[in-house]
Amino acid sequence: MASSAIDELHRIGSGYTIARYTVPGIKDLPVACKILFSRNQCDLVMAFGMPGPKPVDKSSAQIASQGLMQVQIEYGKHIIEVFVHEDEADDEKTLAWLMDRRSREHAMNAYNILFNPKALTAMAGTGLRQGYEDAGPLIDSGRSGKIRH
Amino acid sequence: MASSAIDELHRIGSGYTIARYTVPGIKDLPVACKILFSRNQCDLVMAFGMPGPKPVDKSSAQIASQGLMQVQIEYGKHIIEVFVHEDEADDEKTLAWLMDRRSREHAMNAYNILFNPKALTAMAGTGLRQGYEDAGPLIDSGRSGKIRH
Amino acid sequence: MASSAIDELHRIGSGYTIARYTVPGIKDLPVACKILFSRNQCDLVMAFGMPGPKPVDKSSAQIASQGLMQVQIEYGKHIIEVFVHEDEADDEKTLAWLMDRRSREHAMNAYNILFNPKALTAMAGTGLRQGYEDAGPLIDSGRSGKIRH
Amino acid sequence: MASSAIDELHRIGSGYTIARYTVPGIKDLPVACKILFSRNQCDLVMAFGMPGPKPVDKSSAQIASQGLMQVQIEYGKHIIEVFVHEDEADDEKTLAWLMDRRSREHAMNAYNILFNPKALTAMAGTGLRQGYEDAGPLIDSGRSGKIRH
Amino acid sequence: MASSAIDELHRIGSGYTIARYTVPGIKDLPVACKILFSRNQCDLVMAFGMPGPKPVDKSSAQIASQGLMQVQIEYGKHIIEVFVHEDEADDEKTLAWLMDRRSREHAMNAYNILFNPKALTAMAGTGLRQGYEDAGPLIDSGRSGKIRH
Repeated sequence: MASSAIDELHRIGSGYTIARYTVPGIKDLPVACKILFSRNQCDLVMAFGMPGPKPVDKSSAQIASQGLMQVQIEYGKHIIEVFVHEDEADDEKTLAWLMDRRSREHAMNAYNILFNPKALTAMAGTGLRQGYEDAGPLIDSGRSGKIRH
Repeated sequence: MASSAIDELHRIGSGYTIARYTVPGIKDLPVACKILFSRNQCDLVMAFGMPGPKPVDKSSAQIASQGLMQVQIEYGKHIIEVFVHEDEADDEKTLAWLMDRRSREHAMNAYNILFNPKALTAMAGTGLRQGYEDAGPLIDSGRSGKIRH
Repeated sequence: MASSAIDELHRIGSGYTIARYTVPGIKDLPVACKILFSRNQCDLVMAFGMPGPKPVDKSSAQIASQGLMQVQIEYGKHIIEVFVHEDEADDEKTLAWLMDRRSREHAMNAYNILFNPKALTAMAGTGLRQGYEDAGPLIDSGRSGKIRH
Repeated sequence: MASSAIDELHRIGSGYTIARYTVPGIKDLPVACKILFSRNQCDLVMAFGMPGPKPVDKSSAQIASQGLMQVQIEYGKHIIEVFVHEDEADDEKTLAWLMDRRSREHAMNAYNILFNPKALTAMAGTGLRQGYEDAGPLIDSGRSGKIRH
Repeated sequence: MASSAIDELHRIGSGYTIARYTVPGIKDLPVACKILFSRNQCDLVMAFGMPGPKPVDKSSAQIASQGLMQVQIEYGKHIIEVFVHEDEADDEKTLAWLMDRRSREHAMNAYNILFNPKALTAMAGTGLRQGYEDAGPLIDSGRSGKIRH
């Protein structure tokens, strides 16, 4: 997933450098993000993970998300959480496609937050989703927060 | 939703300026609110979002709300959360109506918190809800905290 | 509910002053409590709310409670949460009675915490509940934390 | 429950003093623990509570536990949570027995944390539980964190 | 479980010292980790626990995990949570095998985080799991966060 995002970022534009930090599990992501903010002075972190299908995995994903939230608030900097749940697709091919597409769309969001915030305002309310089909516009504006993870 | 709220605010009164910050997803709202408090010195933030209908969306909405809570407590300033869940209405027309109405009613609340706190005390216990029908007064006073999101 | 509590407090004793802050929804309570602690130097806050019956309301109530917890811990001062859930009673008359009774009993608790802590120790383990019937004593002492919200 | 624990502590050993703080409900415990750490300079707190059987009680217990966790982390000192859920036993006699036994076993744990940490390491993996029957050893060591509340 | 991890660490490499802290229950782990970070200046902590099968145990595990998350974020250092749920295996022999295997695999992860981070990046996306069979690679890279607890 990180590779898809990095590829997409290079496709979109330049003017940034990328640091990478791999962790063994999704609950290890928040402290890794903190290290990327504090040691590497990153302006934004993308956190990639693939929670499993069992209840204990769902619980881990929630705790990881809460930790990512806490680190974002501590630093006042965005962490773009890119989680693809194993049970979001029925077969491995679709899952691989979803992981690639969602990573690329979130990479675009990450780029826009830092370099082109007006593009996000323009997209608000158009019903764009990361991965799978888009929902289409319902009303013309003001639906910030529409696009979900 | 932001447009409805801005329109309503202009209808109610003046004496304020509005800053706007669009994010790609609801879990990106809390850090955006922090930035609006710290960089833009906002006195109050309205956070608009539209959580989807799936369990993972409900979980995201909860994490976003917890983050909004944390930022409010850090700054001692109100964040008015205006979430319309996609499954609150059966058709798109009703959903659009609900988004507009709830945004306007919360805009009124936001205005009252800053400029007219006595109006909120007067309304406590009258059963007013944001969007849909109101519940009507049960007892005459003291039901602060009645109106839900 | 606030009116019932204030009436009860005046009935029990004096030596205090009351500040009141009304908010539009239960998730707005925690930051209001923080403001009452920091701006009004309150020694204790009673937070009144009436969560609705839907899952989204239950989730809001939980987030509000977590926020109240966080503010209490930040200040090292008690917030007495007085929530009456709409689905705790089948009809409006019983609900109104429950709101009044629970508010009064919690007002007594609030008073005792500040002015008469020994009364709380004496009551520990006697099975007193706020609203509805009491459970009666099971063992004679040491059941601090028995009385629930 | 506090009485059982105090009785057990006196049976085990001396070299400590006990401060007691009674609160009306389990969600009032965390701030009470903070006060015992900050005002009374306690080295460890035992928090006794009896959550009820309803969903709202379970939710309160969870929020209380999260608060106890937060206070522990703030002070870097242990809070031994001793909760007996009302629905852990079918009759009052068993419940009273469970409350006494669990309080005594947790008192032993509290004592060992402060005065005899090696005893805890020796017990790790032996399957001892607080209240009810013990599970028996499965493997010989390394099962720290086995004993549950 | 700690013994398996220590044995594995000694098998993998040297250049570190190990401090051990045993607690009576999983909810006591977070403050123990804080003490190991602050008093013992540990660079990383492995937290071993065995949550029981009941809903109250699952809730305790979640609260323990949230606490471990908070301590990690406070210190910007990793805590490797190694929990084996009692209901992950049907018989005690399998459970003992799982406890040993997961502890060893997490010990390897802990070692790599501190001494060999490149090994983690190389393994990302290969579908390795702690305990039980591995899932096998789906795509070649970028699946950091794949391996679950």
